[in-house]
Amino acid sequence: VTKKLLVLPGDGIGPEVMNEVARVVAWMGRKRGVAFDISEDLVGGASLAVHGVPIRDEVITAAKAADAVLFGSVGDPKWASVGFDLRPEVAILKLRQELGLFANLRPAKLFDALAEASTLKPEVVAGLDIMIVRESVGGIYFGTPRGIETLPDGSKRGINTEIYTTSEIERVARVAFDLARQRGNRVCSVEKCNVMESGLLWKEVVTALHARDYADVELTHMLADNCAMQLVRNPRQFDVIVTGNLFGDLLSDLASMLTGSLGMLPSATLGAVDEDGRRPALYEPIHGSAPDIAGKGIANPLAQILSFAMLLRYSFAMEAEAALIEQAVANVLASGLRTADIMSPGMAQVGTTVMGEAVVRELDKL
Amino acid sequence: VTKKLLVLPGDGIGPEVMNEVARVVAWMGRKRGVAFDISEDLVGGASLAVHGVPIRDEVITAAKAADAVLFGSVGDPKWASVGFDLRPEVAILKLRQELGLFANLRPAKLFDALAEASTLKPEVVAGLDIMIVRESVGGIYFGTPRGIETLPDGSKRGINTEIYTTSEIERVARVAFDLARQRGNRVCSVEKCNVMESGLLWKEVVTALHARDYADVELTHMLADNCAMQLVRNPRQFDVIVTGNLFGDLLSDLASMLTGSLGMLPSATLGAVDEDGRRPALYEPIHGSAPDIAGKGIANPLAQILSFAMLLRYSFAMEAEAALIEQAVANVLASGLRTADIMSPGMAQVGTTVMGEAVVRELDKL
Ligand SMILES: CC(C)[C@H](C(=O)O)[C@@H](O)C(=O)O
Ligand SMILES: CC(C)[C@H](C(=O)O)[C@@H](O)C(=O)O
Repeated sequence: VTKKLLVLPGDGIGPEVMNEVARVVAWMGRKRGVAFDISEDLVGGASLAVHGVPIRDEVITAAKAADAVLFGSVGDPKWASVGFDLRPEVAILKLRQELGLFANLRPAKLFDALAEASTLKPEVVAGLDIMIVRESVGGIYFGTPRGIETLPDGSKRGINTEIYTTSEIERVARVAFDLARQRGNRVCSVEKCNVMESGLLWKEVVTALHARDYADVELTHMLADNCAMQLVRNPRQFDVIVTGNLFGDLLSDLASMLTGSLGMLPSATLGAVDEDGRRPALYEPIHGSAPDIAGKGIANPLAQILSFAMLLRYSFAMEAEAALIEQAVANVLASGLRTADIMSPGMAQVGTTVMGEAVVRELDKL
Repeated sequence: VTKKLLVLPGDGIGPEVMNEVARVVAWMGRKRGVAFDISEDLVGGASLAVHGVPIRDEVITAAKAADAVLFGSVGDPKWASVGFDLRPEVAILKLRQELGLFANLRPAKLFDALAEASTLKPEVVAGLDIMIVRESVGGIYFGTPRGIETLPDGSKRGINTEIYTTSEIERVARVAFDLARQRGNRVCSVEKCNVMESGLLWKEVVTALHARDYADVELTHMLADNCAMQLVRNPRQFDVIVTGNLFGDLLSDLASMLTGSLGMLPSATLGAVDEDGRRPALYEPIHGSAPDIAGKGIANPLAQILSFAMLLRYSFAMEAEAALIEQAVANVLASGLRTADIMSPGMAQVGTTVMGEAVVRELDKL
């Protein structure tokens, strides 16, 4: 059985960093005999330019048929004035929703070799290893009613709706509890239950599920504003954080910035296992399309490469191969190579391609 | 004309730190002949315990009649299982809404003497001085429909609604632009317009207002997730940030934690100037009720004292007196006194009362 992969590089630095993954894929074929059936397509601004839409139905269909999707990033200021329904970001939002990718796993892990890059004091972030599990197909991202209305006097009103149901909360909380059992066994559930009823329900449902099925895991609750603060004050207090779509968006970006190396962090977004045992999954770097540095050949390809490693681990149970890639990346860093975003004194600054080639060279040595 | 002040200490450390403000008020009467007509009342858990509600209508009425409200903090785990409509937090939410306090000014300013307390590297936060202007009577905090419904199958659905209108956005943006003109002349408007229509309207309205009335101020736009990241990566890029209620809640807590001294930061929440030239205003520390240290006599009273200084400046145009208090606080810090939250090696750790007395002693010397 071949492994069907859909590759969607997207906008900005997406295609550049995806090129470097291609080298790693080729290596896997050459050295480990792992064959992938890969198709590639356009999403985001790149799709808008050619097809007039941020993602075509065929791409959604192909994503559903694939065993896994490797995604780059979308978003491009060039399309800032396109209609709301046509913006490049629709591509990733639709993929998450149509594939039912409800659990967005966002690790914030400090790479020892890069500890210097953090703006936080070394003693505050040394060994940092947080996993944020963000609900990703519900909440205010998708709730209706939504839109902009014009009022009788010509002024306007913008509306969005946050909705969470018991089952939506339970399924993502299960993912968090299950992950915690393989890590530090602690989950912190984050909401704003002192202001929002949807947060109150979130807290109730997580509490009940914990009592029912996960009493062995340590569960705490934290308000979202306090969590933002605690991530700065003492980030190492956290193991797994589980939260809704919007809070997860802010808190995971904040948490990953604590590591100082956004260009290093991969993520996975997982759906439910179906009757045939298949689980839809999409892998993408935490970083965005970085239009300011796109096309310059200086972007860091490591988060995209590490996203491919996550894909091998979670979608194909290829733990050995995933670990090889991670080791190769660690070795490249240890050898002193750095892209601009993680550069520090005494290291050797290189571009996207040299970094990608270096990973393959290290793979060869393993 | 006497100045009518309503003092609402609230829960947790609120009453303790408010006691220290009383010393400063007494000093103002004694040494500067400034008389206040002060009344005090219960809010939050303290009001629940006596009156069965988090805030009585009489207190709202008194707040409206007062020239300014000095607020402590509310929130108490003792009342965690009280109904959603009776939770202690209702007190501050109702005050903001009933008094129309739409602009919550939250400075995140590093105190030089306390630079050590930040978890960020000194070179990243030296001289940090951000003003966050948070919309505080709209958005998802107050939008309807809201609530928890039980579905036919017994499961539940929590709903909240984010609504922003042109006029709500304009009035708070004006406050931000006006403030920027007195500071670094830069405003960064923060929303999530790539996902939320309410954010899209926010951006449009701020852009239009800027072109119309504030073209001399530099305006930039940033997505909320990026802002959370940028506050950690390079916080000094910001001058004034203007944002909605929920993003403002998280981002202001995050920003203030960058200074390392939450116990030092005051805030002001302002309404519209009415026909008589009166402007409703409430002053409160950024920190919360800190139930874990309440009653121990170790809380830092400086944020509450500095909130009183802000009150003198914004509500009574007593710039000289406000500056005196701020100077006295700076002198106390320079003398080496520290409460536990800002303690560092070589300094003298003191409790709440000694700190309050020290401020008055420094005032005597000025
Ligand atoms: C591109 C955008 C729609 C997306 C989101 O808000 O979810 C991104 O910020 C992310 O976190 O993956
Ligand atoms: C107490 C709570 C309702 C309040 C809020 O969320 O606005 C607090 O966190 C604040 O920021 O003043």
